[in-house]
Order: sequence, then C-alpha cells, then structure tokens
Amino acid sequence: MTYCVALRLKAGLVMLSDTRTNAGVDNVSRFRKMFTWSVPGERAVAMMTAGNLAVTQSVISQLEDAIADPSHEGDTVLSAPSIYRIAEIVGGLMQDAQQKWGAGVTAMSESIYATMLVAGQRAGGQPRLFMVYSAGNFIEATEDTPFFQLGEFKYGKPIIDRVITYDSTLEDGLTACLLSMDSTLRSNLSVGMPLDLAIVPADIFGFSENRRIEAEDANYRAMSDAWSASLREGFIKMREAPKWS
Amino acid sequence: MTYCVALRLKAGLVMLSDTRTNAGVDNVSRFRKMFTWSVPGERAVAMMTAGNLAVTQSVISQLEDAIADPSHEGDTVLSAPSIYRIAEIVGGLMQDAQQKWGAGVTAMSESIYATMLVAGQRAGGQPRLFMVYSAGNFIEATEDTPFFQLGEFKYGKPIIDRVITYDSTLEDGLTACLLSMDSTLRSNLSVGMPLDLAIVPADIFGFSENRRIEAEDANYRAMSDAWSASLREGFIKMREAPKWS
Repeated sequence: MTYCVALRLKAGLVMLSDTRTNAGVDNVSRFRKMFTWSVPGERAVAMMTAGNLAVTQSVISQLEDAIADPSHEGDTVLSAPSIYRIAEIVGGLMQDAQQKWGAGVTAMSESIYATMLVAGQRAGGQPRLFMVYSAGNFIEATEDTPFFQLGEFKYGKPIIDRVITYDSTLEDGLTACLLSMDSTLRSNLSVGMPLDLAIVPADIFGFSENRRIEAEDANYRAMSDAWSASLREGFIKMREAPKWS
Repeated sequence: MTYCVALRLKAGLVMLSDTRTNAGVDNVSRFRKMFTWSVPGERAVAMMTAGNLAVTQSVISQLEDAIADPSHEGDTVLSAPSIYRIAEIVGGLMQDAQQKWGAGVTAMSESIYATMLVAGQRAGGQPRLFMVYSAGNFIEATEDTPFFQLGEFKYGKPIIDRVITYDSTLEDGLTACLLSMDSTLRSNLSVGMPLDLAIVPADIFGFSENRRIEAEDANYRAMSDAWSASLREGFIKMREAPKWS
C-alpha cells in the first residue's frame, strides 16, 4: 500500500510520502513514490504516485525521457508554461497506460488503477496541487480543501482535518503531515519508513526541503514520541470532563 | 455505513455504536445497531451489528423469538450457559441467513456480508467479547487485543491503539470509545448520531450504562470540544519540537 499527503497552503506546498509497496503481506518492497524537478528560481515540481507500479513508473520514465531528449516536441515538466499543463501531460500519459495495458491487466484480475499528485509553482504562477486519476482527468486543491491524500488515507485524515487550514504555516503543515504519517505507520503495516519529503515555499520557485527521512532519524523519533506523550496527556485531562454517571 | 467499537477490559465491557445506515448517500436512515438483554445479577449481554441489515435484523428477531417462545427447545440468550454459547447461537443464525439469501442477494450484485459483536458476562464466567462473521465462525478479544471494531473503523483506530490496554479503567475506556467515535463522525458522513452506549462492569452481571446519547447531549458536546481543544493545544506544543531546517 502507500500513504502520500500533500498540502497546498497560502505559504506554499508540503509533500510527504512513504516508500513501501506490497503485493500481499509476503511480498514487500521499497520504491520511491516522490519525484522532483526544478529550475532554481524559475520552477519547482514534485509528484507522488500510488496504485499500479507499472503504470506510475511508465509515466515517470516518459516524463524523464522527454526532458532528456533534445528532439522531443511539445512541453515537458521543465518547459511547460504552467503546473496545470504539467498535470495535463501526466493525465495524458496515465490515459495512454490504461489504453495500452488496461484490458490485459484487468483480465488477470489485477488492478490497473493508479493516481498521482502533481504539485509545484513556476514564476508568474501560484503554488498549485492536482490529483490526476487513471482516466487522465484531474482535480485541483482549493482554499476550502487545501490537501490531497493517496492510498491508505483514513488513519491520518482526522489530524489534518482538525488542524490544517489554507492559512496554516509551512512549519505547522509539515508537522501535521508527519503526525498524519505517524498515525498511518502505526496502524497499517503496508505503509513504511523511510519517508520522502519535499517543501516548496511560495514564490521561491525552488525546494526548501527535498530529502529522505530515515527510520532512525532522531528528530522524527522525537516528534513521534512527543506527539504520543501529548495525546496521552490530553487523554488524561479528559478525566476532568463532565460525566454521565 | 456503521461504526461500532467494543472493549473487553479487565474492569469490564464497553460498547458504543452509531445509528446511521445508508444505501448510497441519498438514502440515509436511522436503525438501532445495539441490542441488550439482562437477568440482573445473573447475566448481561449486548450485541452490535454491521453489514446487510436484513441479515442482522433476522438474527436479532430470531434471538428475541426464541426468548419469547415458551416451547423453544435449546439455549437462548437468557438461558445459554456461557457467552461463548451465545456467540455460537448467533453464528448459527448468521450461517442460516447466508444459506437462505446468499445466492439471491449476490446475484443482485448486493453484499450479503454481515458481522456482529457479542459481549457480556454471566455469573461464574468472565467478561467476554466475540466477533461473529457471516460464515458463523467467530474470534474472541484477548488481553493482547482488547477491542473489536465494526464498519468504518480506520478513522477511530489510532486513538484506541495509543491509549487503551487491557488494564485501562472503564472510565478511560468509555472516553476512548467516545473520542474514537467522534473522530469517525467528523470524517465520515455515513456514520451519524445518536449513539447507543452499554457498559458491563466486571462481576456485576448487569449494565451500569445502557442508554442513548443524542446529538444535542451537552456532556458529549463538551467532551468533543475539550478533545478538539486538547489536540490543538498538543499540536501547538509540537512547535517546540526539534526541527530539520
């Protein structure tokens, strides 16, 4: 399984993904689900993937090939005039993969379904965040719903629902994403460390963070322990709440 | 959908259910999912239901009919020698319903799947909690895993995972169940107030609570608000945690 979460705040974009994939509990692997590109000072783009790995890997490979190929005609992740256009390119490649493999994979009773989050900002535009579906269509995060999740989203949704708004700071956004991931890691074995993190502060057109967080990361552990302690403390305080009996 | 949670603690049993059912978001109804029986001082039994409503209603009706029928042969909820035996009776009725309706319902592409939680204590026995499946088989909650959930369980699982052990008090157990329900209500529209609550303290062989909690219940609201405030406060404290950047 997978857990990816992305926030589109006024202050910028925060993206966090796990790295575990599995075909059954006895076939667990580690694959990167976060991919980033940038032209410093001009654009920063991050994508996160979930679902059929063959589909998402083929999309990412074709995006990379287009960038590497000097004779490529049409927009690439590095040349597209907007993040919207990049979502459109990704949608087109998702649709191609469905057409090429959909019938065959479905005939094997396997799922061809995949989704991707496309986030970024380029000079002259706003920070934007899109969720691209298998059929190539996509939706955009708005001020009302400033976040998207992929995969095993339920365990980690309550904390984000409760603390994040469009006006939250990037720092609070990062904390909420890490706590959301922490809740998911504790409850679902198919979501696993290490994590990949990317942050695109508004109007910088680059990444302030673009790194891997390993299982033994001391700051991550400290945060996870502090949150556990804080929840337990809050829970104990509930003993003072009014009672029925 | 449904959310039901039951704890089997050293101190006794706590059960909490919502009351919303739906066939699509445009067909929402209210049905009781908690059913209780007692012989004060001798036994207290509670059941909670999820899944195909025709199946679970037929099981409950037959349990009631058996009690009401003086010529009924064999054990009833009120005469069975153990809670285990009651789980067996429920399992048998679940299996009967599958055999009677399974093929027909499946042919309509509807789900015949149902699950029930059976909890209680009778004089001479321990507090016990069983999860009964459609096929009639069942599992029992143990000291290692002292709770079961039905239905939309994911949103409300992290809080129980973090704060409840077999040695928790009934009061903490009740608070954890209510907070778990509160997180689920906020995140899933198909789970709804009012709630039904039942508590069986160990070795009382009766209920200390067996009541409905209405949407406008002031104590429930106060608890929900206090928990939101506590989470936000805990979250703000996280700003003092170590940072990467």
